[in-house]
This record gives sequence, C-alpha cells and structure tokens, in this order.
Amino acid sequence: MSDHKKEMKEVKAKVADDIAKAKTDKGVIIVLTGDGKGKSSSGFGMVLRCLGHGMKAGVVQFIKGQWKTGEMLFCEKHSDVEYFSMGEGFTWDTQDKQGDIDRTRECWERAKKMIADPSIDYVLIDELNVVTSFGYLDPSEVVSVLKSKPDNKHVVITGRGADKSIIELADTVSVIESPKHAFDNGVKAQKGIEF
Amino acid sequence: MSDHKKEMKEVKAKVADDIAKAKTDKGVIIVLTGDGKGKSSSGFGMVLRCLGHGMKAGVVQFIKGQWKTGEMLFCEKHSDVEYFSMGEGFTWDTQDKQGDIDRTRECWERAKKMIADPSIDYVLIDELNVVTSFGYLDPSEVVSVLKSKPDNKHVVITGRGADKSIIELADTVSVIESPKHAFDNGVKAQKGIEF
Repeated sequence: MSDHKKEMKEVKAKVADDIAKAKTDKGVIIVLTGDGKGKSSSGFGMVLRCLGHGMKAGVVQFIKGQWKTGEMLFCEKHSDVEYFSMGEGFTWDTQDKQGDIDRTRECWERAKKMIADPSIDYVLIDELNVVTSFGYLDPSEVVSVLKSKPDNKHVVITGRGADKSIIELADTVSVIESPKHAFDNGVKAQKGIEF
Repeated sequence: MSDHKKEMKEVKAKVADDIAKAKTDKGVIIVLTGDGKGKSSSGFGMVLRCLGHGMKAGVVQFIKGQWKTGEMLFCEKHSDVEYFSMGEGFTWDTQDKQGDIDRTRECWERAKKMIADPSIDYVLIDELNVVTSFGYLDPSEVVSVLKSKPDNKHVVITGRGADKSIIELADTVSVIESPKHAFDNGVKAQKGIEF
C-alpha cells in the first residue's frame, strides 16, 4: 500500500471514530465573537444553509444603520425568513440612551418570540453582544431565555464582547480575529461584503 | 450634556473620522482560516448579502462530501449563483491521490473562470486552503491568478491552514478559533448549521 493510501486510511478511521462518538441531535447555541470580520456573515451563511434544506429562519438585528443592507434586502424578499431590525442607527448616532434601551427591548421581545415559535428552526440574533456589553440588556435575561428554549431550536448570537455567562452556556463558541483588515488600508466598506 | 451623550458624541466623531479615511472602492480578497467554526458559513453569508443587492456570485467548493448540503441545495435553486463542487468526498474517503489532484485541477479551472467572468461580482472558493496545504495545488498559482484578477472582483478563500503567500496578498484575513465546539461534547453535525 502506498504511503498516501495508508495515511489517508488512518485519517479515515480517525474521522469515522470521531463521527461515531457524536450521537446527539439537538438545537445548538452558537456564539460568534471577537473583533474580526465574519461574525454576522457566518450567522447569515447558516440562514442560507437552512433555506437550502427548506428550514425556516428568524433574524433579529440589533444596532444596524438605517440604510438597506444586503442581508436586510435578502431577508425581506424571502418568505422563509422572518426579519426584524432595530433600524435606528448605531447608538453613537442617536446619542439617546433611553431610546436605545427601548428599541433594544422591542428587538429582544421579537427575538424571544422567534425562539419560542415552533415553526422557526433557526434564530439569528445579530449583534446581541453589543447591547449586553452596553448594559442595554441584562445578559442574565438572555441566559434564562436560552436555557428554556425548545430543544431542537438553533440560536446563533453574534457581536464583539460576548458576555461570559452566554459563552458558558453556548455549545459552540467561535472567536474571530482579523490580523489584517482592508478598512485599515483605506478601503471603504464594500457592498455584498460588509453590508 | 449627559455623560452618555458626551461619550457617544466622541464615539461618533471617531467613527466618522475612520470612515472618512477609508476612501477606496475595490474588490477585496478575503481569507478565512483557523480551526474554528464559521469560515465557510461566513463565505456563504456574503453570498446572501450579494444576492440581496442583486449582485451575482460564483461558488466553487473543494473537498465536500457527496451528500447534498444546504449550501449546495440553495445555490442550485438560485440562478444568480453559479455553483461547482468537487463532489467526490473527502480525500481520506477516496484514498486516490492522483484522482484528488485531477479533481482539484478541474475545480480550480472553474474558479479561475469565475474570477475572470465580468458578470460575476463575488467568488467564493471554499476550502481552497485545504487543497493547497495537501500539496494538490501550488499556492503560487493561486497568488498569480489573484494578482491579476479584475479590480472590482471580490474573492473569498476559506479553509484551515491558509498558505502564507495568500495571507500576505489578502486585503482582509480572519482567523477563527473555537475554544468550545458542540462536536466535542458528542453533538452530531446539525443540518442548517454545519452543512
């Protein structure tokens, strides 16, 4: 047997072994955090995967501007995605703390409804970590809702600065760093890429 | 002025300043690497954003199984996505090195065509890093194609173990680590999430 064949047989056995050990089917809680590019994009990539399988997705976006992003335009066109956005610009634009807290609450109530809704398989709560780190929403309330979520529901939470308690609860945590970003070299946010 | 208002005004000025400095519009090269979950998902999230804006996407997937993934099913249904997959299972399944190299070549030729095609705005080359790190494709060939790509074309490359030369060329590099993954606790790959 060639070295390549032998080596690949070993890899195959290892992969088969790992797969055999993973037996549980369940709705997972995923946290995507860190300062790098790819957190929200990844959450929307899973929306795309769900749609491919004929699953239904719910999306709530905290802290996005008033302009029409690609993800917003996409979601509005697809009946298999329920979409809700805070839609009032970044908090540093509004400079209105109580208004931000009220809009955060409204957004969070929609997210809770989507998590409870048995017709929705996957819920993306985009930039939730930003509102918990601003102190606009108590992470303990998020933890409590996630703990009592339906077993088969997938929930994905994105944003910098994820709270420790949410990280602890999550099944999968991804930390994204960008050692290099086009923006640092004067490249504007690009349509289809950043928004 | 309240502390909050003052603080947020400062944030706003900083953000405005950063945005003013970013003046260039160009097609970006993005590399998503690292061992964590979120590389391919992020690439497909940008596909979704592009579709929202009415842009056209091309997707080439190296090293995917023969089963129908969510992303494959989605892409096949959407005429604004040109899709091509190696579709012969992981290399440790086939244990056929020359066959893998041939299929890699075929896939790469398709990726090159998409990069050259003026009707395509965004090209996702999924798991390219895996085939370059296996030695099935010379990274210098990838660098050479990327260097001469059309200015306005976005190219996203994913997979563990990105080659140094491709990282050097990229405008944005994201490294994804997963300190915690559901799979390690016996949870199977979930539909809509991992595939």
